[in-house]
Amino acid sequence: MERPNKKVSDSKVEWTRCVQTMDCNARGTLFGGQLLRWLDEVAGTTAMRHCGFPVTTAAVDNLQFKRPVPLGQLVRITGHVTYVGNTSMEVRTAVYLEDLKKGLFYPVNRAYFTEVAVDENGSPTMVPWGLEPENPGEIAEIEGAKQRIALRKQRRKEGF
Amino acid sequence: MERPNKKVSDSKVEWTRCVQTMDCNARGTLFGGQLLRWLDEVAGTTAMRHCGFPVTTAAVDNLQFKRPVPLGQLVRITGHVTYVGNTSMEVRTAVYLEDLKKGLFYPVNRAYFTEVAVDENGSPTMVPWGLEPENPGEIAEIEGAKQRIALRKQRRKEGF
Amino acid sequence: MERPNKKVSDSKVEWTRCVQTMDCNARGTLFGGQLLRWLDEVAGTTAMRHCGFPVTTAAVDNLQFKRPVPLGQLVRITGHVTYVGNTSMEVRTAVYLEDLKKGLFYPVNRAYFTEVAVDENGSPTMVPWGLEPENPGEIAEIEGAKQRIALRKQRRKEGF
Amino acid sequence: MERPNKKVSDSKVEWTRCVQTMDCNARGTLFGGQLLRWLDEVAGTTAMRHCGFPVTTAAVDNLQFKRPVPLGQLVRITGHVTYVGNTSMEVRTAVYLEDLKKGLFYPVNRAYFTEVAVDENGSPTMVPWGLEPENPGEIAEIEGAKQRIALRKQRRKEGF
Amino acid sequence: MERPNKKVSDSKVEWTRCVQTMDCNARGTLFGGQLLRWLDEVAGTTAMRHCGFPVTTAAVDNLQFKRPVPLGQLVRITGHVTYVGNTSMEVRTAVYLEDLKKGLFYPVNRAYFTEVAVDENGSPTMVPWGLEPENPGEIAEIEGAKQRIALRKQRRKEGF
Amino acid sequence: MERPNKKVSDSKVEWTRCVQTMDCNARGTLFGGQLLRWLDEVAGTTAMRHCGFPVTTAAVDNLQFKRPVPLGQLVRITGHVTYVGNTSMEVRTAVYLEDLKKGLFYPVNRAYFTEVAVDENGSPTMVPWGLEPENPGEIAEIEGAKQRIALRKQRRKEGF
Repeated sequence: MERPNKKVSDSKVEWTRCVQTMDCNARGTLFGGQLLRWLDEVAGTTAMRHCGFPVTTAAVDNLQFKRPVPLGQLVRITGHVTYVGNTSMEVRTAVYLEDLKKGLFYPVNRAYFTEVAVDENGSPTMVPWGLEPENPGEIAEIEGAKQRIALRKQRRKEGF
Repeated sequence: MERPNKKVSDSKVEWTRCVQTMDCNARGTLFGGQLLRWLDEVAGTTAMRHCGFPVTTAAVDNLQFKRPVPLGQLVRITGHVTYVGNTSMEVRTAVYLEDLKKGLFYPVNRAYFTEVAVDENGSPTMVPWGLEPENPGEIAEIEGAKQRIALRKQRRKEGF
Repeated sequence: MERPNKKVSDSKVEWTRCVQTMDCNARGTLFGGQLLRWLDEVAGTTAMRHCGFPVTTAAVDNLQFKRPVPLGQLVRITGHVTYVGNTSMEVRTAVYLEDLKKGLFYPVNRAYFTEVAVDENGSPTMVPWGLEPENPGEIAEIEGAKQRIALRKQRRKEGF
Repeated sequence: MERPNKKVSDSKVEWTRCVQTMDCNARGTLFGGQLLRWLDEVAGTTAMRHCGFPVTTAAVDNLQFKRPVPLGQLVRITGHVTYVGNTSMEVRTAVYLEDLKKGLFYPVNRAYFTEVAVDENGSPTMVPWGLEPENPGEIAEIEGAKQRIALRKQRRKEGF
Repeated sequence: MERPNKKVSDSKVEWTRCVQTMDCNARGTLFGGQLLRWLDEVAGTTAMRHCGFPVTTAAVDNLQFKRPVPLGQLVRITGHVTYVGNTSMEVRTAVYLEDLKKGLFYPVNRAYFTEVAVDENGSPTMVPWGLEPENPGEIAEIEGAKQRIALRKQRRKEGF
Repeated sequence: MERPNKKVSDSKVEWTRCVQTMDCNARGTLFGGQLLRWLDEVAGTTAMRHCGFPVTTAAVDNLQFKRPVPLGQLVRITGHVTYVGNTSMEVRTAVYLEDLKKGLFYPVNRAYFTEVAVDENGSPTMVPWGLEPENPGEIAEIEGAKQRIALRKQRRKEGF
């Protein structure tokens, strides 16, 4: 398939949010379901920016929460494309807790979302841009994506 | 580890929701991020019911969306425990679109959530109940959970 | 009016929710208005499942709150049809607070909702299914519903 | 019980809202559950203003929806106290659809809420003010409230 | 431009709200962004009532927060028209914290919103009613509005 | 006042959002009040990142909406510090509509927020960092901020 490329940085998305009371569970830390909602929005926005179409989420894979986020703290959420198929894109989302005093960022969570480009009827449509990695990290991400895609196929076949 | 067992059915959770306008994306179908939020709540509630403690979500794995849910339709969401470790439980969530005229249910989505029991300080705490499967389907789920857990460990080691 | 019957259990709806911070009033207990919103959704879903049409709420009657629900607790909400008229259905909703340690359920609230089946223009439409009670409790509910309907008529006439 | 009086008008509450997309059901009219939520807030605010304490909703009675409210229209919601007991107050809420071109108001809904004054522990506390009606309408409301209270007692005893 | 007048009081809007947990920031006081949202709704509703058309917010000017509003307190929000142009109206919003024990109101915030009347395509449309002030306060507001409008023009030209 | 400086870029905040149904008014464009809420959150987050303390919004000035944002489109919201006083910071927020096909950004809205650093009691506290502009644009913003501050003082004195 011949198509022009976009760079990973062309569609990168970033959010910074302050965790509000309405985002928290009964223990005063960020509610996991609220964070999942934000991640889905970041993943979708990243994919829209790459393909120029609306998208729909097809799969979420390997999402791990590493630490709780207390009320009133800042989280930085990023999304970037790691693979482009015919009609689908894989997006890696990552969440960091920001320590305002020290200027440090601690990992909270990361996940891989599969997003499908759709036309105005909601049917899958060709992504008109390929992906051109610019550094070893981005090349390694593409290799990892291929492993994940092979694994997803195997799991679908073996049903676990 | 010696502990008394609960049955899978003791903690099963069910939700039925009508998809409202505020739950939809721009194409008038259920927004993926909203569904993820509901699933996290169902998974957490199922795990709370099994262990009797508050829980926190540690991982989400192998979540696949199979069909869109249009505005105004009913979805049935279920959660049941598929594995119990020391402080963690695996919960399988499933979502079905209900056809009101035919009385049929179509699969929308399923996923595996890892939930960790926490004490009042938010630290992991022992789950006081084991899991007693009652039929071949539940036994097969436990076997699948062992495969998923081994896979999660391998992925963490190999980093993909 | 001759029409086939459905059983009460055919349309029964159940919800389990964990009370989150955003559902609470300033004293850290479930906000009454939020619970009313959930009840209306459960009542509507129950009625939709009985009649197979969208519905609209026409009346709420005899709703009593019996105990507060603290933050972080589970509530179980149920809805079942208690009477079927030409275009309307009466639904009984009930809310229980679940004690996770003891496995007990305490009554929080119950109410009767009148739901009207509507067509795609929002006009009332015939409910195509009657109601077949299966046990003395369900028969008693139908008798209670007749009393409530007579009372609602009388109150409308006398205006109190 | 000797206590000073407040007038009905001292605690009257009024809201005007424009019905937004997020307030609507799948047919583009105001979702009943959302309106119930607003009514509970108006009833609670009216009672707080009368008694000077936080309040909790104890009962909702005789709520009737008379017409749907379309997206983008204005609704006016009012609340006023109709009876004051030892620790409880009855509040009448009413909702009107406003026709902006003609300047007319059409009734949408009315209901009676029973609100209980609570102290900082959430326990019922004495309402320090009685109610002084100022005109025949307000006197008639108090008589109606006595009928409703007697009816609520009778229904609790007879269980319907 | 010859057009009939409405009085300021014809379109005045009032809201009373109890500040809920979900409206608060991490310190337990009303979140500024939530109040801005309420103000925009009050300003829009006031303008709709004056012109009889939908409106869209074009500008917000000179909004000052004077004191925080703690969780569980009542706020009264008012809106009234202070100027009417060809297609736009200026609305003054004001927020007061209500002291329930003393019956006093403390200023929290005030702002000027510019609202534009729009037709069904979202294009600006003529406001069919002028504004007739009834007392010196309302006349002074109109003079203030002229100063604010001149200032907004100057700032747009000088770019600060 | 001697204090170390941070650069403008050290605290810059960026958000990308897809406009969802629940964010829209009855005409299917982004509701002004929702955008105000987002802007307040971006302004507060920017100021927190500069000062390392929680903040509270003290004023909003010169906010202009330039074009509507339709459902399903992406908006990019940015915030950066334009002035630092003793306990307050001025933040400029800007909103752009992103044309996904052309990769262009169209201005939607900009505003100036005054944010005050507060300690754990909610009292104003000294901002420990000054602001070091790095280019002519940032120097010009500081000059503009001085004009805006002088104007805010004058308006407070003259009361318009």
